Amino acid sequence: MDQYLAEAIKEAQKGLQEGGIPIGSVLVYNGKIIGRGHNRRVQKGSVILHGEMDALENAGRQSAKIYQKSTLYTTLSPCPMCSGTILLYGIPKVVIGENETFMGEEKLLKSRGVEVIVEDNDTCKALMKSFLKEKSDLWNEDIGV
Amino acid sequence: MDQYLAEAIKEAQKGLQEGGIPIGSVLVYNGKIIGRGHNRRVQKGSVILHGEMDALENAGRQSAKIYQKSTLYTTLSPCPMCSGTILLYGIPKVVIGENETFMGEEKLLKSRGVEVIVEDNDTCKALMKSFLKEKSDLWNEDIGV
Repeated sequence: MDQYLAEAIKEAQKGLQEGGIPIGSVLVYNGKIIGRGHNRRVQKGSVILHGEMDALENAGRQSAKIYQKSTLYTTLSPCPMCSGTILLYGIPKVVIGENETFMGEEKLLKSRGVEVIVEDNDTCKALMKSFLKEKSDLWNEDIGV
Repeated sequence: MDQYLAEAIKEAQKGLQEGGIPIGSVLVYNGKIIGRGHNRRVQKGSVILHGEMDALENAGRQSAKIYQKSTLYTTLSPCPMCSGTILLYGIPKVVIGENETFMGEEKLLKSRGVEVIVEDNDTCKALMKSFLKEKSDLWNEDIGV
């Protein structure tokens, strides 16, 4: 498996251990992880810290030059908020663990020129499936349903 | 002026006094402000706390039922991140102070059925214009340019 997706999965697993939503993300620039994070809805009572947002926030303030040469790895297809953030900062490439349990704004991203790669990863799917079985209400809250 | 837009402007002014980017926002449900905030890039070193995001975060965890009957007021046209967040939570109406100094994703919002009202407010424009004159680099960072 892609080493960076593996790191995003570690973040998702950390989230699960904390009683949270198992979605993780890492931001990679020049072969190096410059930000990593996972969904913090439960842990911080946050409505904006999805995994991707947490990774970007933890990367800190970066110039456009950095974002424009970075790749965002995420265990799950990015929702409208996270996709909008990818567009805001001009991140050119997104690697997605899976889009079977949730389909995000991949079409919008592609229409704006973002390269979208879906790994169809079994570990990512298994994490979400067992979570959805146990906590579907929490998940619905996270995606505004 | 609309009383809620006036409150969003107060938030923007608070941000300016703190040395930050003068954009403010309030989330209104049932005639009551349930979240208010302003851009915190400078104050918290945050890359995700735009005014709209800060207002939503400060409103705390809400159910879809609440968001779907709320209106978001913001002093400036919402960027892709904030627009994506509006779409994620199904907020049906956005009132915007102005879109002259920055045009956000109003077309995308409208194409997804969000009601978009632009007030073309002079105070909002003056806040951004004087800020842009002084700190254009900070602004470019905030919008990924």
